[in-house]
Amino acid sequence: MPLGERSGDKSDSRYCGVETEFNDDVPRLLNFNLSGGFDFLVYPLMNPAYRPSLLKDHGGMSSALPFAGSDLVLSPSQWSGHVVGKISSWIDLDSEDEILRMDSEITLKQEISWASHLSLQACLLPFPRGTSCANYARCVNQILQGSSNMQLWLRVPLEKPDDDATDGKLGNSTERTDSWELWNCFRLLCEHHSQLSIALDVKSSLPSANSLGRWFGEPVRAAIIHTNAFLTNARGYPCLSKRHQKLMTALFNHSIQIVISGQLLHTLPSRSLEPAANHCDNHIDSTEKHPLRSYLDYVAYLYQRMDPLPEQERFEPLMDNLEAQTYETFEKDTMKYIQYQRAISKALVDRVPNENVETIMTVLMVVGAGRGPLVRASLQAAEETGRKLKIYAVEKNPNAVVTLHSLVKLEGWETLVTIVSSDMRCWDAPEKADILVSELLGSFGDNELSPECLDGAQRFLKEDGISIPSSYTSFIQPITASKLYNDVKSHRDLIHFETAYVVKLHSVARLAPTQPVFTFEHPNFSASKSNERYKKLVFHVPDDTGSAIVHGFAGYFDATLYKDVHLGIEPSTATPNMFAIFFPLRTPICVQPGSSLELHFWRCCGPTKVWYEWSVTSPITSPIHNSKGRSYWVGL
Amino acid sequence: MPLGERSGDKSDSRYCGVETEFNDDVPRLLNFNLSGGFDFLVYPLMNPAYRPSLLKDHGGMSSALPFAGSDLVLSPSQWSGHVVGKISSWIDLDSEDEILRMDSEITLKQEISWASHLSLQACLLPFPRGTSCANYARCVNQILQGSSNMQLWLRVPLEKPDDDATDGKLGNSTERTDSWELWNCFRLLCEHHSQLSIALDVKSSLPSANSLGRWFGEPVRAAIIHTNAFLTNARGYPCLSKRHQKLMTALFNHSIQIVISGQLLHTLPSRSLEPAANHCDNHIDSTEKHPLRSYLDYVAYLYQRMDPLPEQERFEPLMDNLEAQTYETFEKDTMKYIQYQRAISKALVDRVPNENVETIMTVLMVVGAGRGPLVRASLQAAEETGRKLKIYAVEKNPNAVVTLHSLVKLEGWETLVTIVSSDMRCWDAPEKADILVSELLGSFGDNELSPECLDGAQRFLKEDGISIPSSYTSFIQPITASKLYNDVKSHRDLIHFETAYVVKLHSVARLAPTQPVFTFEHPNFSASKSNERYKKLVFHVPDDTGSAIVHGFAGYFDATLYKDVHLGIEPSTATPNMFAIFFPLRTPICVQPGSSLELHFWRCCGPTKVWYEWSVTSPITSPIHNSKGRSYWVGL
Repeated sequence: MPLGERSGDKSDSRYCGVETEFNDDVPRLLNFNLSGGFDFLVYPLMNPAYRPSLLKDHGGMSSALPFAGSDLVLSPSQWSGHVVGKISSWIDLDSEDEILRMDSEITLKQEISWASHLSLQACLLPFPRGTSCANYARCVNQILQGSSNMQLWLRVPLEKPDDDATDGKLGNSTERTDSWELWNCFRLLCEHHSQLSIALDVKSSLPSANSLGRWFGEPVRAAIIHTNAFLTNARGYPCLSKRHQKLMTALFNHSIQIVISGQLLHTLPSRSLEPAANHCDNHIDSTEKHPLRSYLDYVAYLYQRMDPLPEQERFEPLMDNLEAQTYETFEKDTMKYIQYQRAISKALVDRVPNENVETIMTVLMVVGAGRGPLVRASLQAAEETGRKLKIYAVEKNPNAVVTLHSLVKLEGWETLVTIVSSDMRCWDAPEKADILVSELLGSFGDNELSPECLDGAQRFLKEDGISIPSSYTSFIQPITASKLYNDVKSHRDLIHFETAYVVKLHSVARLAPTQPVFTFEHPNFSASKSNERYKKLVFHVPDDTGSAIVHGFAGYFDATLYKDVHLGIEPSTATPNMFAIFFPLRTPICVQPGSSLELHFWRCCGPTKVWYEWSVTSPITSPIHNSKGRSYWVGL
Repeated sequence: MPLGERSGDKSDSRYCGVETEFNDDVPRLLNFNLSGGFDFLVYPLMNPAYRPSLLKDHGGMSSALPFAGSDLVLSPSQWSGHVVGKISSWIDLDSEDEILRMDSEITLKQEISWASHLSLQACLLPFPRGTSCANYARCVNQILQGSSNMQLWLRVPLEKPDDDATDGKLGNSTERTDSWELWNCFRLLCEHHSQLSIALDVKSSLPSANSLGRWFGEPVRAAIIHTNAFLTNARGYPCLSKRHQKLMTALFNHSIQIVISGQLLHTLPSRSLEPAANHCDNHIDSTEKHPLRSYLDYVAYLYQRMDPLPEQERFEPLMDNLEAQTYETFEKDTMKYIQYQRAISKALVDRVPNENVETIMTVLMVVGAGRGPLVRASLQAAEETGRKLKIYAVEKNPNAVVTLHSLVKLEGWETLVTIVSSDMRCWDAPEKADILVSELLGSFGDNELSPECLDGAQRFLKEDGISIPSSYTSFIQPITASKLYNDVKSHRDLIHFETAYVVKLHSVARLAPTQPVFTFEHPNFSASKSNERYKKLVFHVPDDTGSAIVHGFAGYFDATLYKDVHLGIEPSTATPNMFAIFFPLRTPICVQPGSSLELHFWRCCGPTKVWYEWSVTSPITSPIHNSKGRSYWVGL
């Protein structure tokens, strides 16, 4: 039964699972937990006492494996819809003990094979027991190379295991480092395989917010909340700390499923500590309330109290080539034209004193008028400020010009607006403009040839004329973005790794504050100007983040339309939920705590095109991406 | 004029160049140096006073660039055959000074463009001046992406520049690190481009032997020997230290060209210190001896006194898929059959005491008899020891069986040898053998299914019988091998990066001693044997090597034929010049001084094939190579 009906939420996070122990009677176990309100089980596939090497020693024994009954005890849809297979937690494929290592490898393969036979959607793999995971990863990687579509969830503790000394299963290694490191090693060995994901183990103590934040760029599919993570409220019921609550909300928002694990630790009225998910064994009427129900109820309460999803968030993260979609999306942005109108109003007031409003006519040119939104904003600014305005609307796309003509006619603007069907680079203007208005900015500011176009257009701007925008700056920051990276990688070619993408940044971790990259100012009458740029940036990932992987860089822009009127998507100043641009790295780079990331960014101009090149030189050196614009460019 | 005629040497190292200063009269400069005994000039393409930004300031000046005359002053074959273009050494593309940076970029592009126009074979690029080289590399990388075939030699000092405080050109940076680091950064940014290579600057002080050794795995094309590197002998003539002499020999052996640079520093009889290569300016008869002639003569002397090349070295390094060539090469190896004969002799003597030589008949089976070399070795061993021998020669290749029959007839061995035209896995032997002889070993020992074949054949070996070989071990070591890496990379696919190659290791740097990987012993009658193997190896690169790049791993084997009789190619025990096996890394890994390299190696067996997987987990984690044998395997 879903946690609740949250308007607009179609993600998996509505479903809540429960981790159970091994049990011979699966149908009864499933029934008990489903009627207790859970949607699925995380259930051990094999008797935990099983060891292949022990079987061999008692040579004559049955060769049947200790699976929980046959596959017929549940229907195929029950298996695949309600059971996540839990791989034996004793396995240790990197043990120094060769018998244990071989037993582990055989068992893992047998269990995965059985899970595939049952068509389970996912299996939960135990966290590596030691500090090494190469053989475990090699074996899992072989499984991933197979044809199955099954997801493999590697169980990863949020906190270093040595903080959980009470948890026997986590082994005897005392020198264990950040669990992210071992996950990263595992994932790199398996080459970011898209079927390898994470189930986070959440217990009572949480790492720093920065450390937690890393995981939202990683492929986390589930979070296993232990009953010992819960506090007790005044009425004796389980509840979570503020930090845990905030984490739960973030998990829900990132489509991560919750699994409740552990024993009942909160003695509710007339109930004492007792076994939890396997409760059905104890001859108790299955209509009785599930012992973990109070935890589930609390999780459902957290889910239900969330705000409904904002309209923009109801779509899947969008990813497309830079050339497409941008324009359409930007025109829908009403906030943008309000800002333009404010900027134009201020410019009109600055150019025409109140005493001259009747005598001075301001000439305004909209270069790239499109379907007219800036023409409308300009006329509204003129009306608002009482200034007389003459508009030239220059547009090279003949289809847009058709729309523009009908708009002018419809609105009765014929005397105010002159439509020019021409490329602004060829147009011979009959007079010079006081104000030049354009909206040529891409998600990265200068990536849609705004500098080149405005350089060309400024020849019909008066010497003291105003360009709106008057300047713009691109910003960039390193991010973890395993989903985006895997989407890029799935094309298996160089071109996609050297292309920038307009994306909504949904499942990403922002690893350091943004930094400015390139700034352009307009008009620019200096003689030796060049629109080529080179910037070296050094990012510092905060110490308390721990190590993190950089899949690429998120780019934004901030434009000064006029004086204090800004427009942009730079996260520290902009309204959220806007598109950004993503520059991938061909090979993701791991950044250690306290170390810095050195990024080089170039804007290059050739006779027929403009492009970016980028590379990292610290902590390791990447190749230069997109040399000579071989993969990605904008044509002049 | 070549340095000398060394038998078998067809490499470029016969030719010696000279670095000159800028000079307006190129024809005279060239003539002077060629008649002085040099083969080519390293010559500045532009007047060192030229700065693009200065030209602009004096707007009205000629727009012609300060090139050395026109391209017509030399013939095309003179330009391409005798001139290496020297790029202005003042350029600094990573300067904080933007004017200098832009001037440098413009100049570099102009000079390269001029050099391409002249069809020069190579240009010499100055070493980066600061600690950063990203913009320099970006610009060079753009040039490399062009269509020209010109080699770009990056000048790299052997010793850290701060050790050469007298050399003004090397800039003001005091925190300069190992020059290899900057080269490595440059090369990584340019993605190991095959036209980017190295000209090593050799001065008076040399780094440690390990540090020098790194360079022989790098693409070094030239070594520039400065006159200040020379000592003075008793007669006042220049000579080199023992370490320098050893280096020169190694350079010659790796086909690296020598360039002599600097002023005459050795005052020979009746001559004082004077300008060197540009000597021709000073109104001196061009028939006079070249001022650097004594250095050239000494270099020629070092070249001529080298041993002639051994026969095997006269071929280019061979690289081919593992399946091919190995067999042919191994059969030519007469040393191998001498060892086999020694081993068989010892085994015969051990099995048959002297008093029983007349009564006991030893049964010997050659499994995989091929064209008969092991049959011959066995019969010679029997003759040598006086033991009676009955041979079964089992061979599955019917073509080889034809040859075998005619050999037996030719030699009159009909009564001694029974030829069995069969796969040893199917053959039903009429009796059991005392000795099982095979030569199934590949360059990596177990890579040609020797374990599987001998496991199958041992069913017709007596319980106390002897297998020759009785055991074998594979060995491995990390190497720098930029040439091999570039050959693999040129295929632009995953398969070639996950394949092992049988190669002659010519241009490689061995970064750490070999370590044993897998060992197999025969016969092996244990019940639970498996031929799967897993080994984790940790290599320590010596501290005094400095940083180095690992392109992959060189593999070898050592086999115990019988008791103390060994056969193999492991470098610490074997005769040199044998083939090895190369396991590439998809992405080369940089190892810092004192850090360790952690390698995992698996031998995996499936129902129809055997393969290796490999990965690195420290200093960084690589993907697992060749998962499930997807790229490279041997079929059962």
